[in-house]
Amino acid sequence: MIIHMAKDATPEQENALLKRVEARGFEYQIIHGSTGIDVIGVLGDLSGVEESYFAECDGVDKVIRISKPYKMVSREFAHDSKTLVKGTKVVKVGETVIGGRELTIMAGPCSLESSEQVMSIAEYVAGMGVPIMRGGAYKPRTSPYSFQGMGLRGLELLAQVREHYGLKIVTEATGLHRHMCEDGNLERNNVLENVISYADIIQVGARNMKSYGFLQELGILTKQSKTPILLKRGDSSTLKDFLLAAEYIVANGNPNVMLCLRGIRTFEDDRFQRFTPDIGAIAVLKQESNLPVIFDPSHSTGYRSRVRAASLAAVAAGADGLLIETHNNPAEAMCDGEQCVTHDELARIKAQAEKIRSLVYDE
Amino acid sequence: MIIHMAKDATPEQENALLKRVEARGFEYQIIHGSTGIDVIGVLGDLSGVEESYFAECDGVDKVIRISKPYKMVSREFAHDSKTLVKGTKVVKVGETVIGGRELTIMAGPCSLESSEQVMSIAEYVAGMGVPIMRGGAYKPRTSPYSFQGMGLRGLELLAQVREHYGLKIVTEATGLHRHMCEDGNLERNNVLENVISYADIIQVGARNMKSYGFLQELGILTKQSKTPILLKRGDSSTLKDFLLAAEYIVANGNPNVMLCLRGIRTFEDDRFQRFTPDIGAIAVLKQESNLPVIFDPSHSTGYRSRVRAASLAAVAAGADGLLIETHNNPAEAMCDGEQCVTHDELARIKAQAEKIRSLVYDE
Amino acid sequence: MIIHMAKDATPEQENALLKRVEARGFEYQIIHGSTGIDVIGVLGDLSGVEESYFAECDGVDKVIRISKPYKMVSREFAHDSKTLVKGTKVVKVGETVIGGRELTIMAGPCSLESSEQVMSIAEYVAGMGVPIMRGGAYKPRTSPYSFQGMGLRGLELLAQVREHYGLKIVTEATGLHRHMCEDGNLERNNVLENVISYADIIQVGARNMKSYGFLQELGILTKQSKTPILLKRGDSSTLKDFLLAAEYIVANGNPNVMLCLRGIRTFEDDRFQRFTPDIGAIAVLKQESNLPVIFDPSHSTGYRSRVRAASLAAVAAGADGLLIETHNNPAEAMCDGEQCVTHDELARIKAQAEKIRSLVYDE
Amino acid sequence: MIIHMAKDATPEQENALLKRVEARGFEYQIIHGSTGIDVIGVLGDLSGVEESYFAECDGVDKVIRISKPYKMVSREFAHDSKTLVKGTKVVKVGETVIGGRELTIMAGPCSLESSEQVMSIAEYVAGMGVPIMRGGAYKPRTSPYSFQGMGLRGLELLAQVREHYGLKIVTEATGLHRHMCEDGNLERNNVLENVISYADIIQVGARNMKSYGFLQELGILTKQSKTPILLKRGDSSTLKDFLLAAEYIVANGNPNVMLCLRGIRTFEDDRFQRFTPDIGAIAVLKQESNLPVIFDPSHSTGYRSRVRAASLAAVAAGADGLLIETHNNPAEAMCDGEQCVTHDELARIKAQAEKIRSLVYDE
Repeated sequence: MIIHMAKDATPEQENALLKRVEARGFEYQIIHGSTGIDVIGVLGDLSGVEESYFAECDGVDKVIRISKPYKMVSREFAHDSKTLVKGTKVVKVGETVIGGRELTIMAGPCSLESSEQVMSIAEYVAGMGVPIMRGGAYKPRTSPYSFQGMGLRGLELLAQVREHYGLKIVTEATGLHRHMCEDGNLERNNVLENVISYADIIQVGARNMKSYGFLQELGILTKQSKTPILLKRGDSSTLKDFLLAAEYIVANGNPNVMLCLRGIRTFEDDRFQRFTPDIGAIAVLKQESNLPVIFDPSHSTGYRSRVRAASLAAVAAGADGLLIETHNNPAEAMCDGEQCVTHDELARIKAQAEKIRSLVYDE
Repeated sequence: MIIHMAKDATPEQENALLKRVEARGFEYQIIHGSTGIDVIGVLGDLSGVEESYFAECDGVDKVIRISKPYKMVSREFAHDSKTLVKGTKVVKVGETVIGGRELTIMAGPCSLESSEQVMSIAEYVAGMGVPIMRGGAYKPRTSPYSFQGMGLRGLELLAQVREHYGLKIVTEATGLHRHMCEDGNLERNNVLENVISYADIIQVGARNMKSYGFLQELGILTKQSKTPILLKRGDSSTLKDFLLAAEYIVANGNPNVMLCLRGIRTFEDDRFQRFTPDIGAIAVLKQESNLPVIFDPSHSTGYRSRVRAASLAAVAAGADGLLIETHNNPAEAMCDGEQCVTHDELARIKAQAEKIRSLVYDE
Repeated sequence: MIIHMAKDATPEQENALLKRVEARGFEYQIIHGSTGIDVIGVLGDLSGVEESYFAECDGVDKVIRISKPYKMVSREFAHDSKTLVKGTKVVKVGETVIGGRELTIMAGPCSLESSEQVMSIAEYVAGMGVPIMRGGAYKPRTSPYSFQGMGLRGLELLAQVREHYGLKIVTEATGLHRHMCEDGNLERNNVLENVISYADIIQVGARNMKSYGFLQELGILTKQSKTPILLKRGDSSTLKDFLLAAEYIVANGNPNVMLCLRGIRTFEDDRFQRFTPDIGAIAVLKQESNLPVIFDPSHSTGYRSRVRAASLAAVAAGADGLLIETHNNPAEAMCDGEQCVTHDELARIKAQAEKIRSLVYDE
Repeated sequence: MIIHMAKDATPEQENALLKRVEARGFEYQIIHGSTGIDVIGVLGDLSGVEESYFAECDGVDKVIRISKPYKMVSREFAHDSKTLVKGTKVVKVGETVIGGRELTIMAGPCSLESSEQVMSIAEYVAGMGVPIMRGGAYKPRTSPYSFQGMGLRGLELLAQVREHYGLKIVTEATGLHRHMCEDGNLERNNVLENVISYADIIQVGARNMKSYGFLQELGILTKQSKTPILLKRGDSSTLKDFLLAAEYIVANGNPNVMLCLRGIRTFEDDRFQRFTPDIGAIAVLKQESNLPVIFDPSHSTGYRSRVRAASLAAVAAGADGLLIETHNNPAEAMCDGEQCVTHDELARIKAQAEKIRSLVYDE
């Protein structure tokens, strides 16, 4: 941490600051600048210290962090572990290894809607060799008047899919949400408990990426099982905040976290792009973190006709997996149908993406 | 809702769409454009229908919403109610009326830290006639290694403040968070239950504005008490999403919601501005919504030296209240000390802001 | 400047870097961090040196600027000058002093359209005591098919206004633009030459704030006359880039620059706000710079019904002046009519804004 | 165009609006909404009409554009031309066809610095089969104190490169800029004139994308030669504004425009990403426009270590070419050295990118 004193800081203020530095057990070194302004370098492990701890002292102009605020998810951490493949800590789901040489595709509908829909999609997803099926039983919706998901009934359908087709299941948990069923009654357990008991991979949605209490609880509740977590980036979160959210889960006991990019909100007109696909962030996360990186081409583009381009670009940029929405009948999907690809397009994406993976992985 | 068909839409696709429109009980009217492209106007109350419901149909190019997606929080709703003052539905907290002629100031520390700190601040806050004290017992922190708040012990201090000084209390609830005490044990109840039993006004923080399950639960749990809710805007939420979040609470049973602006995240360099104060949004919310609007000059600027300018600007722009951070000893605050104002500056802001309120309110 | 070496930097790389530091005449001091990483403080006047000058060296991880990249426009510069009023370097236009105690209002139409329109507006603007009239003869338009302004004929109308009503004139110059008249011919001189010969204040529009060649030329061409320049912030420019743009003009010879804020582009849905009014930036510019700050409530809000609130907020926040669009017949304006206020609303804004100025200026 | 009347619009206001519609020769159709609000569909070719033309009328609530505001650059335009390859209007530079099956790589230094540097880079660039060399003789710099480029001397070096190595040249023009030489004198011609006389492709930089006068002048001056233009997207420009900027050049006489993406500015912390690579925009531009799309992986990432990932991603997403910065000695580059790749890395990118191009092009 570098502390830049204000032009008019008094020696008393600087002394008070230095005491604060020492009180936390850090060493320091002072640079007496030619303009009469002192700059103080604070030395030691500052990962648990926020800039504001020093910035709020009188006489301080600016505090600049140099070390990373996260530890366990950083690229430097755990370097000699046997779980690392080319610097990435792989996550295993059944026989599937996520983060290694093979590209992992997860596909399925945005929302679970009916037994017929779920089984029909599961059949073709499994048929083309996709190992993991996605599907939301609980849907966080911007409007209180929109369809909120099938709830527990949906989770039961996913359990059937697992049994019949051997697919592993990724589905979203949301915080505190006791699901209101169509008959107006609340489900007995909260959403998180229900999802934990059914899912092979627990998805944390973009809207909950900053619900720190939820992340902490999730880490604690999966400390034993170590069920893999697919953490989506908030649509306006910096990469630093994204990595700190992952750190929340890991620090509370579950190291099996995957980072999922899904598009960010920018100044771009949403009549052109629903979100801005954050494909450039893949390389940054690979440099900064040891976690596998998954890309969601469906939410990040918002349009079926652009899912393939975004998928191939993400894999070329180094993504370890893709989370793709598909629907047996996109025009009748109850949620986000405009971004679902058909069976044929999914198969085409899978084939091309795998070729690109092998082209770029060994270079 | 206006539906614009694609250039190459077939008559079959258009018919399928029109059936979907009729299936939901809406009427429609078709404009046959001179370029051969049809535009369909869907008529009726569309507040519960998302654009994507139509956009996902084959042959549709674009869907444009014209009506508002929220109802109960909109300016047009409840117009003849006796609770309205100049179009704003006032919220009462003890004898304080928020949203009427008088400006309401809420002040206090960011985090509760100790009995001494809390009482010392409460004394001067009450002494200058501020009716409501703020203070966080549970702190959502970006880093898992940062101070997470005093928890239940903090709420008990706030209860003492209420008793000794007659101050009303606003404090934040976070979702699912079972607070981990300094001794490493979890508190028995979740944060929401604890906060509901102590607070006069329940604050929903910016990070939870999109935790829809949490908003729903909050509405349900306060349906009887109708405890006022101070809902903060997410730092990257559009105003539409902000109003829909308020609608979530109101639609689930509690109409006493106040909208609190606290700065947004933009491209601006955070070495210049921590957030961009969203002062322009005050006028928009006043035109769109019937809820009182509160402004937080502390988080929106991030620097003590700019709190006064932002406070006065917000009141000049029509804000009904200010939520200001103050500390008896800013340099030793455990959280956000750099944005806390002192007693003297708070008194000065209060005096000037009240003058501006009376200047602009009756014009 | 603080230089943070990479974890794997070699001594040779560090030596090469230090030679580069010395080659520019700077001193340095090295902090040997406890993690084995060196941090180098570079000392001296670094205002003409970009971070990348050091960042591009091998072995460097990060370079952090501490000193300001601008000099002459900074708050610290020119402190003992007689032209300063409360730290602001005032700009004089005829008898009007901009940046001092009095609030300065500049008002007029977005585009000049006809003699009748210009004279009609000038009459009521002058009548209510506004000293400066705005009006665009050259209009930078997003579409090549939109009305591009009256050109030289418009400037001549402004000259008449000056003569008849004693109003000073602010009008925009654009780069390289040889105006195409309605008859399809190009004007003989370029826009900048024409504007320089007519204007009392030369406006640089938001779209040209980063046209550095244009800013340099403007500084050179007005080095003698020192005609005041009203520099608008680009709608996506950081404040640092805004101040550097001002520095371009000042460094090339013309110190009479005023900073004009006009709203920024954010993630906000333009169906709610055309731009986000950057009212919070006023306090920042007042702390960082010695130049007067003008606020444009018309472009920053985009809607007539919000111009008053934004005007009053800007003045409460410390703006030295307002640049307001007004039209004798808003519904028939050829450009931006939806944000023009009427005569009556302008008078009301002026009266209230002046009261707020006197309330906040002396505190 | 869809016009939505205000709730309290009077019949007189609506009639006045309809007259305005008819005055421009458009037809209309009225939808009488169930809520008593009229919605008016305006029919005809509205590409030259801005929304504000109707929005500024009294009684209008909102105006929504459905047709595109640009014509000649749109995907639908010029469909039967012989210059189209798979819907893209190819641009020819010597024997190189940009926008067809072959991927086009343009590479070179950010700034021209010396004869030795230029020749050394040209030699290896030509040697690996790159057909076009980039290099800036005029550099738009954020700070007036930074190196502004070699000017005319740089252009002369580029002419030598063309002669010796058979490379075609792409270099940037900036508006109005009369270059100031190191001896303090201004060059005789303006930058645009100089660049036009030397370049094979004229680059318009991101900072000038909205300098509409400059774009118009450029179109007029190259109307005869039809010298190809490489138009860079402004770092905060919407895609709509980007396409309208291209339309400015085409509408003024030069159809040979290429769209170049170079990263956008978002909320992302620049300590992680200098810009956000806008790779997702490639697919959008391919769907909306008929112009070739080039991607700049150097400016969009800002770091050498991420240039390869961004390059491959862009090609996988459908880019027709790459504009890459390379330097014989990155650590001594005078500008943006941290994003320059070496000879070896450039060769590796070229090989992999060409494989991906052939993989995705025919699918």
